[in-house]
Amino acid sequence: MSSVDLSKFEVGYDIPAAIGMDEADIQTPCLILDLDALEKNIKTMGDYAKAAGVRHRVHGKMHKSVDIAKLQEELGDSCGVCCQKVSEAEVFARGGIKDVLVSNQVRDPAKIDRLARMPKLGARTICCVDDLANVADLSAAAVKHGTEIECLVEIDCGAGRCGVVAGQPVVDIAVAIAAAKGLKFAGIQAYQGAMQHMQNYNERKEKTGIAIDMVATTVEMLKQQGLECDIVGGGGTGSYYFESQSGVFNELQCGSYAFMDADYQTIHDENGERISEFENSLFILTSIMSHTKADKAICDAGLKVQSLDSGLPYIYGRNDVEYIKCSDEHGVISDPEGVLQINDKLKLVPGHCDPTCNVHDWYIGVRGGKVEKIWPVSARGKAF
Amino acid sequence: MSSVDLSKFEVGYDIPAAIGMDEADIQTPCLILDLDALEKNIKTMGDYAKAAGVRHRVHGKMHKSVDIAKLQEELGDSCGVCCQKVSEAEVFARGGIKDVLVSNQVRDPAKIDRLARMPKLGARTICCVDDLANVADLSAAAVKHGTEIECLVEIDCGAGRCGVVAGQPVVDIAVAIAAAKGLKFAGIQAYQGAMQHMQNYNERKEKTGIAIDMVATTVEMLKQQGLECDIVGGGGTGSYYFESQSGVFNELQCGSYAFMDADYQTIHDENGERISEFENSLFILTSIMSHTKADKAICDAGLKVQSLDSGLPYIYGRNDVEYIKCSDEHGVISDPEGVLQINDKLKLVPGHCDPTCNVHDWYIGVRGGKVEKIWPVSARGKAF
Repeated sequence: MSSVDLSKFEVGYDIPAAIGMDEADIQTPCLILDLDALEKNIKTMGDYAKAAGVRHRVHGKMHKSVDIAKLQEELGDSCGVCCQKVSEAEVFARGGIKDVLVSNQVRDPAKIDRLARMPKLGARTICCVDDLANVADLSAAAVKHGTEIECLVEIDCGAGRCGVVAGQPVVDIAVAIAAAKGLKFAGIQAYQGAMQHMQNYNERKEKTGIAIDMVATTVEMLKQQGLECDIVGGGGTGSYYFESQSGVFNELQCGSYAFMDADYQTIHDENGERISEFENSLFILTSIMSHTKADKAICDAGLKVQSLDSGLPYIYGRNDVEYIKCSDEHGVISDPEGVLQINDKLKLVPGHCDPTCNVHDWYIGVRGGKVEKIWPVSARGKAF
Repeated sequence: MSSVDLSKFEVGYDIPAAIGMDEADIQTPCLILDLDALEKNIKTMGDYAKAAGVRHRVHGKMHKSVDIAKLQEELGDSCGVCCQKVSEAEVFARGGIKDVLVSNQVRDPAKIDRLARMPKLGARTICCVDDLANVADLSAAAVKHGTEIECLVEIDCGAGRCGVVAGQPVVDIAVAIAAAKGLKFAGIQAYQGAMQHMQNYNERKEKTGIAIDMVATTVEMLKQQGLECDIVGGGGTGSYYFESQSGVFNELQCGSYAFMDADYQTIHDENGERISEFENSLFILTSIMSHTKADKAICDAGLKVQSLDSGLPYIYGRNDVEYIKCSDEHGVISDPEGVLQINDKLKLVPGHCDPTCNVHDWYIGVRGGKVEKIWPVSARGKAF
């Protein structure tokens, strides 16, 4: 039922719910998951990837949950997990995920040492490289522990963060990886993060097209050096169809599709309509706890249970009330008709799911009005 | 040394440091505390309150740490803790704090029940009330458990959240509390949260002055009903001098002063200078982990280790580099002269300390270049 022994946690103090509890009795604020919607989203993406002939390595940094990663294996046929930190990767490896990519650079000596020990947990271990100087350090650690680290060379596809320019710089690093003891050149990491949330479909298509062309050229250059890419990875909830159909990418790395959030729901499909293939499965459950003004109610979900980097949450399924302001511990709800009562519950769709999940300890999975699953946010706090 | 048994946690996986470790070996990103600065801040505020003849009930919702609350008792002579949630209050009570105020409304039946059991943990238990309908529920729970809940009537001093209008509405609720079995009328909660961060000193003074007048009138009306206020509480890092000198307030509730943050450092004193009585003691320690662009370095501190509600962090003690952009896992550092190297460490001052501390599991206390204390963020995740 859960990757942790729930009997070790006190309901109402450690956990906001108990298995079998009525949804109405869940302590707020907390994260709840609509299990029907979650399962449907996972199946939809899994079926899509299968039909498109690409693998799907689910992005574990979004949910940070071993239980959900396993559900994605079971229902969505995912080939493994990617995540962003070594400690996070270790949570997935310890939890039984057998194929883990740190889709990020690993530079600190202690982190490199931990990464090199990860294969001993039974997980294929992959990381990204964007600097020749990193190759020797990774190699030395793998040799020291008698393990193998697979390496992807990261291309900066336009996000302006990590990654090298496509073409020769990739080849140079790939050659060094292939020659280094304890390392294996495994391919290319090419995630275009900066365009995922662009509303306009054609703009996203254009940006992804630029990335696809860069990657295609680079793959060809690598081939000429005798270097085959086992993995050409990238793609997110806002672009996965482009990478899937590219003939170049063979592994998707989608995260948000499983939960969805307010920001991703503003992006459009090719018909100019809001994307609709995935449903909201993640909500912040909140209660009204003060209503001293006729037209405003105060709920118990503030800054401490969500991230506002992509804007305020919206209230699911309600047009009569609106979340208009957020402070540390409170949300102000506009209630012009005065319909809200003390202890009424509302479901908020967070602006941005990843950093919102990151502040919570638990997912409360509900179905048919009952609590069916309680899953820890397994890699919460694993930021290093 | 710490309120938890550190030997139960794995260094580098669960905790980013070990006691005695060189500061240079701390795993990033994480929160570090400059212990000299922290102690100085705590003493400064404690001395101020003592000289002004007011008590100081420190705001535990800021740090969520039992260890720091105890340090505030020891060095700052604090009279107790306030916090915002029942589960959070319970952490402090279980941790040995003997006087705990939930400076918020408690409306959910399960939460009221837990609150009513809190005195059995040995803690004076106080909460706020802003609705007559709440009085009967609190009373019934206290009677059921044979305990006493002290109640403050909350006045909305201008923040537009919880609390009733000053004057007669306060008296009405106070009378009901005083008459209810299991409850004790303890005074007034009057925190002006909306003005704490106003840059201009005179604007803050004016806003606080309005609140002070409302509270003074209400205290007088209560006296005429034979109701004495044991506690007239309020005040924060941006206003504590006003409440202290009011002759009406007798208990401060400051939080941020102990750590400070970028936002509070923009407010001015009476001379139009940035306030300077408190030092930065809280930092996000971060490392450079990619530098493929000549003028930009990428650090490992993104959205998952801070809250951006009050803006980006700044880099402490450096004018040559600047934190200019933040994504989920990365920060982009402008490095025009190319001075940053891979694995260089930087100390970030977060925009807003409360929700930043809320995403971390540990405080790493450093002094003289060594890790001296490792304290859990005891009430992390206690949002309900």
